[in-house]
Amino acid sequence: MSKTEMRPIKETIPLEEARQLIADTCTPIARRERIPLIDANGRVASADVHSTRDVPPFARAGMDGFAVIADDTFGASRYEPKTLRVIEKVYTGEMPTRQLTPGTAVEIATGAPMPAGADAVVMVEETEKTGDLVRILTPVYPRQNVGRQGADIVVGQTVIREGDVLNPSRIGALAALGVAQVEVYARPTVAILSTGNEIADLGQELKPGQIYDINKYTLSTIIQEHGGVPAPFATAQDTIEALEAAIDAALGRRSLGEGGCDVLVFSGGSSVGERDLILDVIGRMGEIVFHGIAVKPGKPTVFGTIQGKPMFGMPGYPTSCLSNAYMLLVPALRAMARLHPRHTHSVSLPLGQRIVSTTGRHQFYTVKVVDGVAMPAFKASGDITSMSQADGYIEIPAQTDIVDKGQVVDVRLF
Amino acid sequence: MSKTEMRPIKETIPLEEARQLIADTCTPIARRERIPLIDANGRVASADVHSTRDVPPFARAGMDGFAVIADDTFGASRYEPKTLRVIEKVYTGEMPTRQLTPGTAVEIATGAPMPAGADAVVMVEETEKTGDLVRILTPVYPRQNVGRQGADIVVGQTVIREGDVLNPSRIGALAALGVAQVEVYARPTVAILSTGNEIADLGQELKPGQIYDINKYTLSTIIQEHGGVPAPFATAQDTIEALEAAIDAALGRRSLGEGGCDVLVFSGGSSVGERDLILDVIGRMGEIVFHGIAVKPGKPTVFGTIQGKPMFGMPGYPTSCLSNAYMLLVPALRAMARLHPRHTHSVSLPLGQRIVSTTGRHQFYTVKVVDGVAMPAFKASGDITSMSQADGYIEIPAQTDIVDKGQVVDVRLF
Repeated sequence: MSKTEMRPIKETIPLEEARQLIADTCTPIARRERIPLIDANGRVASADVHSTRDVPPFARAGMDGFAVIADDTFGASRYEPKTLRVIEKVYTGEMPTRQLTPGTAVEIATGAPMPAGADAVVMVEETEKTGDLVRILTPVYPRQNVGRQGADIVVGQTVIREGDVLNPSRIGALAALGVAQVEVYARPTVAILSTGNEIADLGQELKPGQIYDINKYTLSTIIQEHGGVPAPFATAQDTIEALEAAIDAALGRRSLGEGGCDVLVFSGGSSVGERDLILDVIGRMGEIVFHGIAVKPGKPTVFGTIQGKPMFGMPGYPTSCLSNAYMLLVPALRAMARLHPRHTHSVSLPLGQRIVSTTGRHQFYTVKVVDGVAMPAFKASGDITSMSQADGYIEIPAQTDIVDKGQVVDVRLF
Repeated sequence: MSKTEMRPIKETIPLEEARQLIADTCTPIARRERIPLIDANGRVASADVHSTRDVPPFARAGMDGFAVIADDTFGASRYEPKTLRVIEKVYTGEMPTRQLTPGTAVEIATGAPMPAGADAVVMVEETEKTGDLVRILTPVYPRQNVGRQGADIVVGQTVIREGDVLNPSRIGALAALGVAQVEVYARPTVAILSTGNEIADLGQELKPGQIYDINKYTLSTIIQEHGGVPAPFATAQDTIEALEAAIDAALGRRSLGEGGCDVLVFSGGSSVGERDLILDVIGRMGEIVFHGIAVKPGKPTVFGTIQGKPMFGMPGYPTSCLSNAYMLLVPALRAMARLHPRHTHSVSLPLGQRIVSTTGRHQFYTVKVVDGVAMPAFKASGDITSMSQADGYIEIPAQTDIVDKGQVVDVRLF
């Protein structure tokens, strides 16, 4: 078992610098895959989709009523209706068999194909039918109440552009083309590894000195929520050998696709303890980009690359780990997934209690909304209830020392 | 084949009245289920969860450093350090074996259990170790840098309340208790049925007069996005018999759980065409609550109940169907799923072009954001591109006739 000396963090970098260094490394995933259209919500199109057909594929009635020659209706009114002979009824899903000639009409349902010769539809409310005769009570102009062939989409039209995030209506537009499969960018696969001899898996009995694994669950959840595919690994023991074996598995694991995961997220082991080996492992297998950020909580965070893949070493404390996931991992993941920056639902509320923040660090501060006021909810970075009993968080920049009671703050809701 | 007469919609009800009638019928689902914690994001807890243990289960070091008796450090400074004898090292996951006595210290890692006798931790940065002696450079007070047993959660504490929507940190709080399964409310299962002889399934060749099924895809997607489980059925032909058989299947289908689906959503067949049979079927099998809403698009919408279950008859036109899903189905579904009302991401933008809306109907109007201005994107209610090429929508109340160019509107982004 390797036991290196304790290494205090000598210098921290500002949060903005950390964000920029991460952004430079976490570039969009180029890998593509074909998936069923029905599963494509929230995914990102990896190619333009051009229509190979007109939608609708035929001119159709836009109203229930009577297909007519518009000219036959000119001058019609309630007092002087024009009378036409009904030669056929056409329902949706059927093709008309008769051609309209002057003085005739075809009863037609919304969406049914227009008969040859007809150029307009009189809506049923403006007609009176008796036997095979229909009285037209209002004139229509040519093309009125007719959906022309290709009105929605024409052959060759670009229906989806590369980079579009698919949503219900875009999925509908692809369905209109008869496309049952769609080509999208692969989601980034994120290997999650909790390290630490004290970490027990859920369902086990705790041994003395042990605590349950929280970070595997919070990280899996937040990764899934922001366009990634979590790949949790078994907790690794605090040895160089165990960590290296876990990294090898994450980078090479077949089930994660060729080349394994796209991102590694470790929790624990990035502080200054004797057994905090993440730094050694990255140093041996890859490159350290930074160690230590001027944020609170979450200062002992390490970021680097292994085989060119971004690797986050999150603090082991559950609130520090999750707050850093919100501030650093989520933007990186969304960029890799080609999703827009996170849409946070924010509310502006007066602060219910003065906050003093003299650490010189950018602060992630959880709050609870009580009677329209943001009340501090932060306990300690080791306490998951600092977040689970909060409704959201505010950020306090490093250069701000005091936020006064009553000051309006921007609460980002969880 | 039943061919009833065309029935024009004689009276429409205002949108707000329709929303209220739907809200009265669509009450929260009471069914519960146990699911793995890792799958619980976004689900709603169906019972309070009380802790059966203290978290952390032992007093632990809050810093890397030396566990001491605080009294031994009083008066320490860089110039007059106090020297203690190091009797043990304790890493996380290990139990201390020695008891502290005055003049001794235990080297300890963040998160490791405190040794008996110690009441504070001096952080490593404030110490100098040589052999088995450590010089303490600053005093600590009792309990400083110590996380007490139960500081995060104590036995009996309510960690999750019935009705809480689970999110990453709440899932973390459950993980802290070692809970691998959680009890949640079941999601509403929604039977989706496109009706119409003209509707072809994706992957088939279109026959003359046919179009592809769009609504099954848009509805499935939006239902999934808002806490429901879509259960798409094969398209039904326009006959009373086919529709009744489909409803029987939706209400009784075993795979949908006891009693089948919780909601039925049909599209097509609620207009005034001769073959629009939904009204007849609801009339025969259940109760009609309303038919016809003063909205545009989406007027020919029917809502009723069959065997006490809400049943939406959406217009067949894809944009009408989807806009009504946003305005009527989504709020109903979220209420049944016990989710908060939809968090729409809205932006306030000036309108780029005057809109005249003199229909006396509440209007769902799609817009595209171009250079910071909301430009009308609406084509026709039959055109899915009215929505798929838009970025969001504005609502224009029935009593508003004109929205001027430059007026600031609230765009709800898709």
